[in-house]
Amino acid sequence: MQFTAQQIGILLNGIVDGDPEVTVNQLAKIEEASPGSLSFLANMKYEPYLYQTKASIVIVSSDFNPTAPFTSTLIRVKDAYSAFSILLDQYDKFKRDKVGIEDPSFIHPSANLGSDVYVGAFAYIGANVKIGNNSKIYPQVYLGDNVEIGDNSTIFPGVKIYYDCKIGANVTIHSSTVIGSDGFGFAPQADGTYTKVSQIGNVIIEDGVEIGSNTSIDRATMGSTIIRKGVKLDNLIQLAHNVEIGANTVIASQSGVSGSTKIGENCVVGGQVGIVGHISLAKGTQIQGKSGISRSIDEEGTKWAGAPATTYNQHMRTQVVLNRLPELERRIEQLELTLRQKDKE
Amino acid sequence: MQFTAQQIGILLNGIVDGDPEVTVNQLAKIEEASPGSLSFLANMKYEPYLYQTKASIVIVSSDFNPTAPFTSTLIRVKDAYSAFSILLDQYDKFKRDKVGIEDPSFIHPSANLGSDVYVGAFAYIGANVKIGNNSKIYPQVYLGDNVEIGDNSTIFPGVKIYYDCKIGANVTIHSSTVIGSDGFGFAPQADGTYTKVSQIGNVIIEDGVEIGSNTSIDRATMGSTIIRKGVKLDNLIQLAHNVEIGANTVIASQSGVSGSTKIGENCVVGGQVGIVGHISLAKGTQIQGKSGISRSIDEEGTKWAGAPATTYNQHMRTQVVLNRLPELERRIEQLELTLRQKDKE
Amino acid sequence: MQFTAQQIGILLNGIVDGDPEVTVNQLAKIEEASPGSLSFLANMKYEPYLYQTKASIVIVSSDFNPTAPFTSTLIRVKDAYSAFSILLDQYDKFKRDKVGIEDPSFIHPSANLGSDVYVGAFAYIGANVKIGNNSKIYPQVYLGDNVEIGDNSTIFPGVKIYYDCKIGANVTIHSSTVIGSDGFGFAPQADGTYTKVSQIGNVIIEDGVEIGSNTSIDRATMGSTIIRKGVKLDNLIQLAHNVEIGANTVIASQSGVSGSTKIGENCVVGGQVGIVGHISLAKGTQIQGKSGISRSIDEEGTKWAGAPATTYNQHMRTQVVLNRLPELERRIEQLELTLRQKDKE
Repeated sequence: MQFTAQQIGILLNGIVDGDPEVTVNQLAKIEEASPGSLSFLANMKYEPYLYQTKASIVIVSSDFNPTAPFTSTLIRVKDAYSAFSILLDQYDKFKRDKVGIEDPSFIHPSANLGSDVYVGAFAYIGANVKIGNNSKIYPQVYLGDNVEIGDNSTIFPGVKIYYDCKIGANVTIHSSTVIGSDGFGFAPQADGTYTKVSQIGNVIIEDGVEIGSNTSIDRATMGSTIIRKGVKLDNLIQLAHNVEIGANTVIASQSGVSGSTKIGENCVVGGQVGIVGHISLAKGTQIQGKSGISRSIDEEGTKWAGAPATTYNQHMRTQVVLNRLPELERRIEQLELTLRQKDKE
Repeated sequence: MQFTAQQIGILLNGIVDGDPEVTVNQLAKIEEASPGSLSFLANMKYEPYLYQTKASIVIVSSDFNPTAPFTSTLIRVKDAYSAFSILLDQYDKFKRDKVGIEDPSFIHPSANLGSDVYVGAFAYIGANVKIGNNSKIYPQVYLGDNVEIGDNSTIFPGVKIYYDCKIGANVTIHSSTVIGSDGFGFAPQADGTYTKVSQIGNVIIEDGVEIGSNTSIDRATMGSTIIRKGVKLDNLIQLAHNVEIGANTVIASQSGVSGSTKIGENCVVGGQVGIVGHISLAKGTQIQGKSGISRSIDEEGTKWAGAPATTYNQHMRTQVVLNRLPELERRIEQLELTLRQKDKE
Repeated sequence: MQFTAQQIGILLNGIVDGDPEVTVNQLAKIEEASPGSLSFLANMKYEPYLYQTKASIVIVSSDFNPTAPFTSTLIRVKDAYSAFSILLDQYDKFKRDKVGIEDPSFIHPSANLGSDVYVGAFAYIGANVKIGNNSKIYPQVYLGDNVEIGDNSTIFPGVKIYYDCKIGANVTIHSSTVIGSDGFGFAPQADGTYTKVSQIGNVIIEDGVEIGSNTSIDRATMGSTIIRKGVKLDNLIQLAHNVEIGANTVIASQSGVSGSTKIGENCVVGGQVGIVGHISLAKGTQIQGKSGISRSIDEEGTKWAGAPATTYNQHMRTQVVLNRLPELERRIEQLELTLRQKDKE
């Protein structure tokens, strides 16, 4: 996978300024690039790197005017960042361009696979599973009976999806994530033991969702745990039974949402946040990392922090005083002392 | 899997009130049910839903007296909730009714499998492994050498159990959970590096335990990490080497217990709790979510919160004042000002 | 695997004091040992256990002088703890002594395997993968295209390593850990949706690193996420894209490090710590469990605690006063009352 400056210039509809025959075989940041790398310069804050970089090719804007000598071949395009993004996406697609059925894999005779599907070795496709066109099921993935996967979805190695769960189109799920394990439902008995409450619902993941690695999404007790379209979930997240995450909400790593809680659309939840069960968060809520949310948030677009959380502003005010707490105690002691002395006078 | 009201009436020993030929093929909550669903009405708070539901069949108590028109066929039983629970469990069992050895799987010739066992494709059964009767080893599970699994246990896809670990009867372990990985033991050296301390113990999981997905339970350095009977562990939990969890204790998602800590029987630990190593918690201890426990708790049945934790009551009192902290500072300033003015007078 | 006291005496270059024919088949702590166990006594705090233990053999220092009767055969060596450690390591190696290619596994014809390699059943070895001598790839491991593994490394069952990642020599990675999943990078769009930023970098793990189970290490957006030599990572840890962890740094379970953050050498990070993105921590920084680090730490060798973190000493001072907060409020009320009464006088 080696390309000349000329080939890339044609691909990006750009003008080559320098040696058209120089070749590259990787993409790199301008400050880290080695010979054979292609890089870009979009933010002029980084312009000094151009005069030091070892990148063989640098993509720049058509109106860029260098102010010092440099060694790279330039490719001048309308928008350097967009042009580089196109190359990034192409490179990424190339790296993940898998098609066909590897052997051995387990595909139940009743399963229904679309066109141009990839099924990696040791993948398990259960009874009545449906996989859409162009979807990629990597090695060691498990799809239980009746699972459905839409078109253009990518299920990375070792993902486990339990029976009856439904995954939309353009969904990406990273390794070792588990979809549809049992909700944590146990009825306490008089003797201190617990009886399991059967979890017969499923998980529905709508179109355009991306889920990181080692994340757990439990099936509903009855009905569905639902991840709405465009949601982005990071690694090591816990979503309990009957949770619903609104469209285009983003949740960072190691956060957890307890049973039956509904999070609205376009929310942003930081990392290591805990949200209790049976509450709802309004559209556009923002939660700072490490917060604990124990009550519903009804007003849209508000910002929260702390454990237990208060509004972000109140939290910041409290934090500032908190660091002065030992000093406040001394001031109270001083006041008490002063008053006692006054009494003696 | 389609059943008539008459068939279900016979199964539940109930009386059909309505069309005995109407059929259902799924279970649903009364407020979410679509035609073809079977639902139940036990808590009279939900009675209004009966007059709106599209459920084809609703299980009710034998003495239930409707007060408005409705379209469902009723099945009258002694206890509607119990009857529905029976159906849930039956449905759940049906969905998980796997038996036989799928191909290809890896079963060491020295392994010993009980009767009516399921071994899914790509499962790995090491040397001298013993699996009890009616146990289910789903696809892509790994059982290292000398692992023992009791009767009626279910090991879901992708669980990894390292060598020498012992799993009891009626145990359920969900996907991607790891049992018996090395404890985190390293001896610091003078040059700043660490030398590994070999971890040669194992993990023992007693009867009736359920463990969620993506949970990690480390093997003991020597001896055993022990999960006593009836314990329920949620997803993404960390139990370090030589930990012991007492019978019927429940731990919610994303909590962690450090090395050699002993948790008593019938404790309840919330989510995202951290518990330091080498301490013990008395029987019946309750820990609120997100707490940090850094000392042993000796008194039975107490309730703790906060990080570092105090008693629940003290924590709540402190929290209340905490939110008034900026106000307290202003009151101290006011007192100081008043006293200075008095001095001037 | 049964050994006589005489055999062990020869192995450890020790003197047998008691029955040379007594046999052992396991290692155990002196306070937990059953007949057939070999144990050791190094710390004289544990001497009383010698007079109660059921261990068949106990390793002691050559100058040890018993003060009461006991039943075990002693083996006298120069340093009892070191001698026992040697046995531990031998036992551990014996338990993990796997070599050869199990069937079925998937090994791309272009892959390059060193000598004495183990590849377990259902392992997937992609195109151009290189595996060094004596390395062990356990069952159900996934190594994507172009992955490199150095000599003497152990990749436990179910680990997933995405394409282009580089793993050094003497590395151990435990089950279900994921190396090289996509960084969490999404560009917000005007309509509230997000566009994925392609993640084309990789992960580099240097020599002597150990990583626990269910840990997630994301690939860099561009360039590399880097884990330097000798780093020890526990279970369920999150390391985001472009993170760099310095040599010999230790991170405990369930901690998370956000994108592009650099942690220095010889740091110690407790469990459930959260560290924000784009900061750096100086060499030798120590972070208490459950802390939240939101700013760079520039001074070497400092200790931090709390969320948001302050220096450990300040944190402890604040915590002490925090528990007196309700009392402080009452004292302020009393001061206000006293002053009001003074005013009336």
